[in-house]
Amino acid sequence: MSTDPIDSPLFDRIAESLGRQRLLSTLGARLVRVADGEVDIELGWSEAIQQQHGFVHAGAIATIADSACGYACLTRMKEGSAVLSIEFKINLLAPAVGEKFLARGRVIRVGRTVGVATAEVFAQSAGKSDLCVAVMQATMMRVEPKNGAGG
Amino acid sequence: MSTDPIDSPLFDRIAESLGRQRLLSTLGARLVRVADGEVDIELGWSEAIQQQHGFVHAGAIATIADSACGYACLTRMKEGSAVLSIEFKINLLAPAVGEKFLARGRVIRVGRTVGVATAEVFAQSAGKSDLCVAVMQATMMRVEPKNGAGG
Amino acid sequence: MSTDPIDSPLFDRIAESLGRQRLLSTLGARLVRVADGEVDIELGWSEAIQQQHGFVHAGAIATIADSACGYACLTRMKEGSAVLSIEFKINLLAPAVGEKFLARGRVIRVGRTVGVATAEVFAQSAGKSDLCVAVMQATMMRVEPKNGAGG
Amino acid sequence: MSTDPIDSPLFDRIAESLGRQRLLSTLGARLVRVADGEVDIELGWSEAIQQQHGFVHAGAIATIADSACGYACLTRMKEGSAVLSIEFKINLLAPAVGEKFLARGRVIRVGRTVGVATAEVFAQSAGKSDLCVAVMQATMMRVEPKNGAGG
Repeated sequence: MSTDPIDSPLFDRIAESLGRQRLLSTLGARLVRVADGEVDIELGWSEAIQQQHGFVHAGAIATIADSACGYACLTRMKEGSAVLSIEFKINLLAPAVGEKFLARGRVIRVGRTVGVATAEVFAQSAGKSDLCVAVMQATMMRVEPKNGAGG
Repeated sequence: MSTDPIDSPLFDRIAESLGRQRLLSTLGARLVRVADGEVDIELGWSEAIQQQHGFVHAGAIATIADSACGYACLTRMKEGSAVLSIEFKINLLAPAVGEKFLARGRVIRVGRTVGVATAEVFAQSAGKSDLCVAVMQATMMRVEPKNGAGG
Repeated sequence: MSTDPIDSPLFDRIAESLGRQRLLSTLGARLVRVADGEVDIELGWSEAIQQQHGFVHAGAIATIADSACGYACLTRMKEGSAVLSIEFKINLLAPAVGEKFLARGRVIRVGRTVGVATAEVFAQSAGKSDLCVAVMQATMMRVEPKNGAGG
Repeated sequence: MSTDPIDSPLFDRIAESLGRQRLLSTLGARLVRVADGEVDIELGWSEAIQQQHGFVHAGAIATIADSACGYACLTRMKEGSAVLSIEFKINLLAPAVGEKFLARGRVIRVGRTVGVATAEVFAQSAGKSDLCVAVMQATMMRVEPKNGAGG
């Protein structure tokens, strides 16, 4: 699978779609990389996304992983497509402790209507190695937006 | 399985734990019911939790379902236990459109260290029947908090 | 959801389809009940389906649960439809020990192309209460068989 | 992650355990490779493992993927450990058509009691490229066998 950065129009299209995902800005997430079949979304640490033990809540980790999976599939769908999550499954591997979190979504297969992707989420802190804190396997559905609005 | 409301100390204990889950207050979620093996969490609609098509984001739905599953397991664990999500899987059944959303977590089985729960999430709007928009199956781990702080 | 036994033509159609699932006869599974949105499949104990500790292998339990989910969805699809598993997730709750095992699949929602179902698998032994040993959540796809052969 | 073949005692130990999994021999599966954190299990095509459309049944594919995940975790557990599946989730990507099927399990993380692994299953036919027909994400539990029997 090629992971070369691809045309910036696709980055712009996904960034624009992600910008309309109010939950992602509520949490503090942003798009950082788009390649053929791969999308990276970054989430900065904040108190607002903690769970009761002070780690980042599994729901916030799942949110960026789900979006990374969805957009990774979108890079392999024809222009004008939008994508909806059918389902996802996430394993939380370690407490989500770090300065920021990177969800890397990767396409496994995109068919005519159904796509499958995986994501890894890494905790990142200055002076430390990245630690994989979660893995996701997700199923996405391609939809044809009625009004032609993509994403 | 009994679903009678149980002792209010348990409700208070879970409400206190949930109150420390900053992500849940960020999203606007609150505890509404605790029974033996069952916990209901409610999430009001707001723009802050939308995805790009105007529906509530799967990540917000997953957050309340995950928390409802975790606390449902906690009702069957000995006092002083805390619970962490090992993994969960969620199916999104219909666009999450409504005035508010109710996640009902139910214990399937709680063992010595591992618990399994399911959750249904219902969209609720005045004058309309509840619509099940998501189902989750989750695996939880009981942990013994070092400082005795429960939940 | 109605669970009344329904028309025997549907039972016959599913039994015929299941009869063509060679793996199910290899394992010793058979159809025992079909209702609107529900299908029960039974698997008798045999050495041939054990894992290394003498319990029934998770793969055999998953096989009957997956088939029960698929056929449960099929009861809500228009005649002539066939069903394929997109994905499933199963929790193994207790060692699968018993004389026989009953997988009960139940529809959660069937849409135009995608269906979601859950299954519980019970271990059954003479003189003992049924024990739920596994729960599944599965996603199915409706396909239009080229040759009109259902199931 | 190193994928060099490791000591043959470990291969022998896993092969011995797999030999006691009667379901795997019933289906026609065998161990073909053991490395640090990776295990490959092969399943030959036969009519006995088909589903109703002539493809290999998802249950048979899940069986070898589950076993590959479990044994992959076992390569990172201390000697004398045994492993049980807590849960797994599998996506079926394409009809399982081929002469044989290779499930490659890989450890994601093994902790003190819980391990997480993924598996890919490839369909293989002479003169054709391998096709990935399924991906699994699984959670395993380490158990201390009472009688010291490993695996």
